[in-house]
Amino acid sequence: MPRLILLRHGQSVWNRDAIFTGWTDVDLCDNGLAEAKQAADLLKAHNIKFDQCFTSYLKRSIHTLWIVLDALDLTWLPVRRSWRLNERHYGALQGRKKETVLAEVGEEQLQRWRRSYSIRPPALEETDARFPGNQPKYAGVPHRHLPLTESLEDTVDRVLPYWQERVEPVLMAGRTPLISAHGNSLRGLVKYLDGISDEDIPHLEIPTGKPLIYELDQGLRPIRSFYLEDGKEPHALPRAKAAVTSA
Amino acid sequence: MPRLILLRHGQSVWNRDAIFTGWTDVDLCDNGLAEAKQAADLLKAHNIKFDQCFTSYLKRSIHTLWIVLDALDLTWLPVRRSWRLNERHYGALQGRKKETVLAEVGEEQLQRWRRSYSIRPPALEETDARFPGNQPKYAGVPHRHLPLTESLEDTVDRVLPYWQERVEPVLMAGRTPLISAHGNSLRGLVKYLDGISDEDIPHLEIPTGKPLIYELDQGLRPIRSFYLEDGKEPHALPRAKAAVTSA
Repeated sequence: MPRLILLRHGQSVWNRDAIFTGWTDVDLCDNGLAEAKQAADLLKAHNIKFDQCFTSYLKRSIHTLWIVLDALDLTWLPVRRSWRLNERHYGALQGRKKETVLAEVGEEQLQRWRRSYSIRPPALEETDARFPGNQPKYAGVPHRHLPLTESLEDTVDRVLPYWQERVEPVLMAGRTPLISAHGNSLRGLVKYLDGISDEDIPHLEIPTGKPLIYELDQGLRPIRSFYLEDGKEPHALPRAKAAVTSA
Repeated sequence: MPRLILLRHGQSVWNRDAIFTGWTDVDLCDNGLAEAKQAADLLKAHNIKFDQCFTSYLKRSIHTLWIVLDALDLTWLPVRRSWRLNERHYGALQGRKKETVLAEVGEEQLQRWRRSYSIRPPALEETDARFPGNQPKYAGVPHRHLPLTESLEDTVDRVLPYWQERVEPVLMAGRTPLISAHGNSLRGLVKYLDGISDEDIPHLEIPTGKPLIYELDQGLRPIRSFYLEDGKEPHALPRAKAAVTSA
């Protein structure tokens, strides 16, 4: 049975400090390192196997993956990195304290940016150092694909081609991918897999450091999905789409 | 100008303890970690760029690469791993103390195994746990390619297809590979690049943690090669083939 493992990176320094991060390449904080180790322990305790890794261009996801690979003695596994698995680009909010932005624009506007599907935060100028087009690591990406800001919808739209062209063939070949990525790029995958509505998906929270397992049929449609929990047998939680909250 | 960087992993626990290692997946010792960091510092000090990484299936090379990538903030670079870049397989000597083997077989026989081109150490039985065919990580490799023991010639013969099929196309596409690998797999590449004789190549020592730079012409023939030295400008040492010793 095709199986897929999704893993949201552990807490980063800016997650901890409540700063909008997006594509800023902030590393894991100590708690995030511990969460990555915990994810590895869960995979080991439940004997969950995988044989192909995917991650983003951002070190908080890459390091989360490395910690998992080290703990499971699987550093030799193939790893593919892609900018398409990056976090949602947060535009001109990147690098700003959430409380500062809140004080400026108010709760309603802030929630509109954070919890709507199609609304984008204010865009960067192309001259801004935060624009990926000004960073050498994105020199290999066609300029038209590099965001000045993104809605969750934009993120989903750039994640799905990667899923279809890189991950699905691995599953169809009988292999088991682990994807170490971000809250919003993983939301995009879960939306696609479970057919979650545009209205519901911004409210789905994928916790950090908890491997999310999908079992798929031969057509790569989900049969069930569940989070691995500390030290307990894997158990079928309500399907991810049923975990949608109104928060 | 096409350019290539070869990097031999830092000292491993078994290097330190004088145990035959081969394909045994021994990690770096503290000194090896420091050597990897030193390699990164040299690359940074000399502003040596690369954009595609290759390494073996063995963690001492993978960790050396990770330390370099972390230090240069290049964790997003593509990395390809292959068993073909592994160390020479040392057959039934793997896991044995060098001094024990010396006492058993004498200096002359030991040197024959270590410093000849075509002579193989005693082979493993296929039932031996040290045979890669009994290890899950090599399940994807055709059984006929998995060694019970190897001469240096055997190592060269399995490294070169990888060079030709994976590394040369990267160079021809204008990219700059860094290969983090092992004393003997790198010997194989240097033999091929510089046309070193079967008699001389076993005596070529490639130091750990010192990036070896090759500048190549458009036909991928070496123009010059040099080691980066601590804190000094890169300088053209005698070509690697001229560094052959009679030791």
